[in-house]
Amino acid sequence: MGEDFVVTPWEVRGKVDYEKLLRQFGAKPLTAEEVALLEKYAGDVHPLIKRGFFYAHRDFDFILKWHGEGRPWALYTGRGPSGPVHIGHMVPWILLKWFSDKFGVEVYFQMTDDEKFFDDPEMKLEEATGWAYENALDVIALGFGPDKLHLIVDTKDIAPLYPIAVRVAKKLTWNTVKATFGFTDSSNIGLIFYPSLQIAVAFLPTELKKEPTPVLIPCAIDQDPYFRLARDIADSLSYPKPTTLYSKFIMALTGESKMSASNPDSAIYTMDDDKTVKHKILNAFTGGRPTAEEQRKYGGNPDICPVFHYHMLFDPDDASVEKIRQDCKSGALLCGECKLKLHEKISKFLKEHRERREKARGKVDEYRLSVKLK
Amino acid sequence: MGEDFVVTPWEVRGKVDYEKLLRQFGAKPLTAEEVALLEKYAGDVHPLIKRGFFYAHRDFDFILKWHGEGRPWALYTGRGPSGPVHIGHMVPWILLKWFSDKFGVEVYFQMTDDEKFFDDPEMKLEEATGWAYENALDVIALGFGPDKLHLIVDTKDIAPLYPIAVRVAKKLTWNTVKATFGFTDSSNIGLIFYPSLQIAVAFLPTELKKEPTPVLIPCAIDQDPYFRLARDIADSLSYPKPTTLYSKFIMALTGESKMSASNPDSAIYTMDDDKTVKHKILNAFTGGRPTAEEQRKYGGNPDICPVFHYHMLFDPDDASVEKIRQDCKSGALLCGECKLKLHEKISKFLKEHRERREKARGKVDEYRLSVKLK
Repeated sequence: MGEDFVVTPWEVRGKVDYEKLLRQFGAKPLTAEEVALLEKYAGDVHPLIKRGFFYAHRDFDFILKWHGEGRPWALYTGRGPSGPVHIGHMVPWILLKWFSDKFGVEVYFQMTDDEKFFDDPEMKLEEATGWAYENALDVIALGFGPDKLHLIVDTKDIAPLYPIAVRVAKKLTWNTVKATFGFTDSSNIGLIFYPSLQIAVAFLPTELKKEPTPVLIPCAIDQDPYFRLARDIADSLSYPKPTTLYSKFIMALTGESKMSASNPDSAIYTMDDDKTVKHKILNAFTGGRPTAEEQRKYGGNPDICPVFHYHMLFDPDDASVEKIRQDCKSGALLCGECKLKLHEKISKFLKEHRERREKARGKVDEYRLSVKLK
Repeated sequence: MGEDFVVTPWEVRGKVDYEKLLRQFGAKPLTAEEVALLEKYAGDVHPLIKRGFFYAHRDFDFILKWHGEGRPWALYTGRGPSGPVHIGHMVPWILLKWFSDKFGVEVYFQMTDDEKFFDDPEMKLEEATGWAYENALDVIALGFGPDKLHLIVDTKDIAPLYPIAVRVAKKLTWNTVKATFGFTDSSNIGLIFYPSLQIAVAFLPTELKKEPTPVLIPCAIDQDPYFRLARDIADSLSYPKPTTLYSKFIMALTGESKMSASNPDSAIYTMDDDKTVKHKILNAFTGGRPTAEEQRKYGGNPDICPVFHYHMLFDPDDASVEKIRQDCKSGALLCGECKLKLHEKISKFLKEHRERREKARGKVDEYRLSVKLK
């Protein structure tokens, strides 16, 4: 039996079967009941959940009920800062902001400059830390205030994290991390220790608030191994188990399962100028037919089409998205026109985003956890 | 061929052959030329060196010449805080203080509460950190001011250390640390990462002073594996190689090569009351004969005698120590009398030490590096 796809925290390869991945990881698919529970507390349901982009979880129902009991919780996600942010990275952060607004909870955002430095032989530490600051601008630009967003740049904000990471590290053996993350004998000891730090943030709000404060972690499904381990050891450390909400990957403009940092044309970066954005969209792979004539006759396939995928992610209007789907399938909508519609949406989003992003420049340290704790 | 002794950073077993150990580790014996060089710069030579207790090194001559050129350097040593301090621990610290005074250089003192927590399944982190503070009193009591002594309690002062440790960790693979420290598949990932932190302190003064500032590390020979690795990777990280000065172990009162924390009677603790100290000394193993009559007739063996060993360590007067050696060998000095002489010396030392120790209470944070850097 051949390996048809690979998903680890460092690599996504092949055509991902998301249902099979869930079975491998042992997470649960998100059910209609859980979505209804979310609607009960939030008042509505974000399109990214409604449209199945966030599709799996661990104990998402638990954290909603916990909230229903009026008990404190927090949000946690992160970013490996190894280069500029593309709009694929932003998608889960948009949901994060929605959760923070709807439920009024604080966000812990980890910039894992240490991990990126450990993982890439060519990466200098200053470079990874520099990207952490640069990427933080994109997070802040989503509209967070320093009261709600707490940034953790690992090499800068290690102080509140390390005493927790130390307790976590004592619970994890070489055997365990080797089996979970596929480390080899030539893995460096930084990478081997690193899971302690990612897991530690899940327990940080409980330490800071001095009462059980579980976290909800909206992130891509490839991060599950960390939080599976975190949940395994939480009890023995007297911390509440972290809960998760997992997304699929953002399709690359080339049609592959995931955008690739090594191919800049596969993704739209927040700092791409509008001309570049337009060029990339117009050159994207689509689910359309080779000629306009065939497209009109047979219709296209939105399911494999990154252009449609992006309409789904960036257009909040259900009717508008459904119309694009139907018009594509019927052949009423040609790829060129569909791409121009997408460009218009993304262009507007990015223009506003870049303005907010520049306003955030110079303010990153106001959001940093250890600066606040001083 | 049987294993006659074992020396690792966590364990000393059997009768240590110090020359053989040097060959195993690849460090160098201290020569008369090097001692003469020390005398040239320091004005004199500390008894602990003159009497061969500090007996080996890596590049000790280099750091002396570096000093001779008027270039900056620092001292570094540490303590694994897993319980109270005994006078064996204090011996290298006394030399540390001497170096600091003679050469006017600053001391970085690492309290490895994380390491002790990782290494002992029964140890709680709060306990190890508590011992770090308690043990720090014994260090400060040696007479250091906060301008000369910089304390690093790993879980409290990780901030300045971690960015250096990260660079170190990337250079060390599982293969390397497994071979160097004998880790197993069930070693926890804290212990596996820990060498990065011990090595990082060797490079810390260079980072803080922003110019090449090598360290001299006076410590027991069992710590060599860390600094061997540190020297291996220093060049590639653009840090000067750390230099070392290695001591033998303090003989246990029971006559074994090293005092054991698991047998409180094998060591004299700084907080033992005088009655306990006297009791322990009077009950110590000696190199004497079974009866006073035989001792007078045949004389004793000071070489295997912990009581003589302690006279050597705590009596700065060469003539006095030499007289004890001769009187022991000739049978003129009986063990009981020799023990009472020792008790007098240790008792005086400890009385003054405990007074200074209590004065230090409440002041530990003034010495902590990250508190100063704030």
